[in-house]
Amino acid sequence: MNEKNRQAGRPRATSTFLANTPEPPYYAVIFSNVRTEQDPRGYAAMADQMVELAFRQPGFLGVESVRDVEGQGITVSYWESEEAIQAWKADTAHQVAQAKGKADWYADYRLRVALVQRENPR
Amino acid sequence: MNEKNRQAGRPRATSTFLANTPEPPYYAVIFSNVRTEQDPRGYAAMADQMVELAFRQPGFLGVESVRDVEGQGITVSYWESEEAIQAWKADTAHQVAQAKGKADWYADYRLRVALVQRENPR
Repeated sequence: MNEKNRQAGRPRATSTFLANTPEPPYYAVIFSNVRTEQDPRGYAAMADQMVELAFRQPGFLGVESVRDVEGQGITVSYWESEEAIQAWKADTAHQVAQAKGKADWYADYRLRVALVQRENPR
Repeated sequence: MNEKNRQAGRPRATSTFLANTPEPPYYAVIFSNVRTEQDPRGYAAMADQMVELAFRQPGFLGVESVRDVEGQGITVSYWESEEAIQAWKADTAHQVAQAKGKADWYADYRLRVALVQRENPR
């Protein structure tokens, strides 16, 4: 069995940025947002903490997150089920972060929940 | 009827970054990628051209795109149907861009096709 087959057909990523999600179906939460200029240090600390917490949530499959120099950001988190998404939404520490995000950190955002149906081969 | 109702309950975005998609269901193509350092000007020109072309595709609903200073990018494009996604994938100019992307511009990427089922209110 060659190296590729040992990895169940999954090419190795050249970057840790890309989430190593399993075969679909699974869920994606697409959070597109625009940062205010408020509180960059507080925001960064909370963002790091939320990623750390998300990794410990049941059903969490990974996350990809980018922010550009203008403060525009997209974070896509991947989940096994709707139930896993709901549990993360209801998490106490995450709710504090959500409230602070709405009040201070985000000028605008949209949050879409989607069922990933297929992945194109590279 | 107040201003909000005239807009079918859709709050106005404070930024042109966020795609003004309709009520779900519709499709999202989540393209997460890492740029090589090759050919920044050629890449930027092609990326602009592809967005312009996509806006003219039948069934195109919008796009949100972010790249950070490290070359990590997420582009989410939104589509009415699987057929619209397939037609865009097969577009001749887009196929040239896809080939150049695989050969030169992207160190790595993942492309996921997802059905947006709901959007959380802001």
